[in-house]
Amino acid sequence: MISSKGYAAQSAKSMLSPFNFQRREVGPHDILIDIQYCGVCHSDLHQVRDEWENAIYPMVPGHEIVGKISKVGDHVKKFKVGDLAGVGCFVDSCRSCSSCQAGNEQYCEKGMAGTYNSYEMDKKTPTYGGYSNCIVVDEKYSLKISDKLPLESVAPLLCAGITTYSPLRHWKVGKGMHVAIVGLGGLGHMAVKLASSFGAEVTVLSHSATKEADAKRLGARHFINTKDDKEVFKARNRFDFILDTVSANHDLNLYLDMLKVDSTMVLVGAPPEAVPVDAFSLIPKRKALAGSMIGGITETQEMLDYCAAHDIVSDIELIPINEIENAYVRMLKGDVRYRFVIDMSTLS
Amino acid sequence: MISSKGYAAQSAKSMLSPFNFQRREVGPHDILIDIQYCGVCHSDLHQVRDEWENAIYPMVPGHEIVGKISKVGDHVKKFKVGDLAGVGCFVDSCRSCSSCQAGNEQYCEKGMAGTYNSYEMDKKTPTYGGYSNCIVVDEKYSLKISDKLPLESVAPLLCAGITTYSPLRHWKVGKGMHVAIVGLGGLGHMAVKLASSFGAEVTVLSHSATKEADAKRLGARHFINTKDDKEVFKARNRFDFILDTVSANHDLNLYLDMLKVDSTMVLVGAPPEAVPVDAFSLIPKRKALAGSMIGGITETQEMLDYCAAHDIVSDIELIPINEIENAYVRMLKGDVRYRFVIDMSTLS
Repeated sequence: MISSKGYAAQSAKSMLSPFNFQRREVGPHDILIDIQYCGVCHSDLHQVRDEWENAIYPMVPGHEIVGKISKVGDHVKKFKVGDLAGVGCFVDSCRSCSSCQAGNEQYCEKGMAGTYNSYEMDKKTPTYGGYSNCIVVDEKYSLKISDKLPLESVAPLLCAGITTYSPLRHWKVGKGMHVAIVGLGGLGHMAVKLASSFGAEVTVLSHSATKEADAKRLGARHFINTKDDKEVFKARNRFDFILDTVSANHDLNLYLDMLKVDSTMVLVGAPPEAVPVDAFSLIPKRKALAGSMIGGITETQEMLDYCAAHDIVSDIELIPINEIENAYVRMLKGDVRYRFVIDMSTLS
Repeated sequence: MISSKGYAAQSAKSMLSPFNFQRREVGPHDILIDIQYCGVCHSDLHQVRDEWENAIYPMVPGHEIVGKISKVGDHVKKFKVGDLAGVGCFVDSCRSCSSCQAGNEQYCEKGMAGTYNSYEMDKKTPTYGGYSNCIVVDEKYSLKISDKLPLESVAPLLCAGITTYSPLRHWKVGKGMHVAIVGLGGLGHMAVKLASSFGAEVTVLSHSATKEADAKRLGARHFINTKDDKEVFKARNRFDFILDTVSANHDLNLYLDMLKVDSTMVLVGAPPEAVPVDAFSLIPKRKALAGSMIGGITETQEMLDYCAAHDIVSDIELIPINEIENAYVRMLKGDVRYRFVIDMSTLS
């Protein structure tokens, strides 16, 4: 076994604190990554505090992982020692169901093995995430990372990047389309960068008027303050696609009314409570409300390659790991532009 | 003007009663239909009682209209005197917006002119529906009706038929697909007939165990009593498409859980209250909840021709018009198999 160290929550009430644990030995298809940076996702906080009621403790969070490979198994083909590599939200899946066969491992019928707060596919070995010094992962569930981009700013692409890239691609967002992004946080700011780079005319919908300048800097052409009823009313039937990145409770019908006929709004943030949907928001114009969750390995690699080719990264604030609890407090207040990333060299 | 008689509601509280009114003269593009039968839709009741808070009184309901043409305008091409003809849920639209141009007049950007409880496109001349002896309609908004089928059983196709046909076609329901129909009423029983005739393997989901035999007689292969938690649990991730025809409040998440990855559930019934949708019912398998409303003229004609070719009609109970209030009471209790149709010869 490989001795590892990280930060873990011991219960829903405890603060994250140093934790020593074991990783498996590097198997024939595995790589060992010395983690350099790990992004901080809002879902880390939900899970650490057991807000989704599925917590497994001790919990080492983190699923936006980048670093350098220090060891490879005998049969590894995609990587060599010294390469950069990344790990996203899952580390394995059944590999045989129709979703896995289609490259949509995130929708695995047996349930994917999450990078943390989950179990390996044996359904009994707990998985530990990226708030740690290293990780052992099957090369098939690892991503190649370009050295052309600042590595710390690449980390959030592994979750925030693919979570927004995948639905934008699936619903064919591109040139000539009017696209709205709801919320300008970790996910939203990536959605704006990606959708505008795909050629769409992007509008940011936010209740924080102060974000207008940033929205436009990131690539949005328009900004609507959703507290302004007149602007909201004027935006009815305007958009070909809406990506809703907000994970707080909010009124979806307001946004559904802004969709054109035959258009879709996709949720990637998960509000804690069920959201009331008015049937009349969907029926009269054949609209749809859909959901989307991260992306498969092939698509995640495609996204990383696209970002490297188009110079797209996350806007981040780098923190030492002993600042993580404070980062959570600030994240809850929306006080981060736009993603905290942990500098793992501070774990000593 | 043409003197017409029918049954009208004078207010949300009044019973339907005999009413004399005027129809416009037959214009160059109009046809005059002597109405023989008119179906009774659940939405008639919602509107008569102003439950959608948009009632215009006096209101002559009815949008499942069939009859024989007694006069045609000089420029009418599609019809001649003596032909059968039908009218559905709308009698005009703007004719120039992208939805109208695409043949989706029901999604007209200016708002279609409803067959009743609405206004002509001048937005000031009220429209009166099919609980009456005749109607004047532009031939473009009229349908050709085959004489091969019992005419009284064809009437409900104009709303219940197209409301279910259109989404089944739009989402490409066909051979090899597992399709669930929620609710076995006026809409649901048409959905079962149509989906099974398209080659799908149909399951009816209903909380009335007594409907199982009927569901199978109508073409369903399977029946799930939604009060049986075990059966509901076993049906998770089973369906490629779900059509929800229920207009009472009900738990949509139960059904969303039964969808496969990348599949859609479509609402055609409109529950009076907003329905709580759990984001986790949509996100983990990229599912969608959509709406659909009747169909355009071209598609309605296609549906009528399909039904004539495949011997598909509605199961009906024929009533005299003075039984309409009693029919509403029974409809509210779900006591109709499966559509009331008014024999308009009883209007004297």
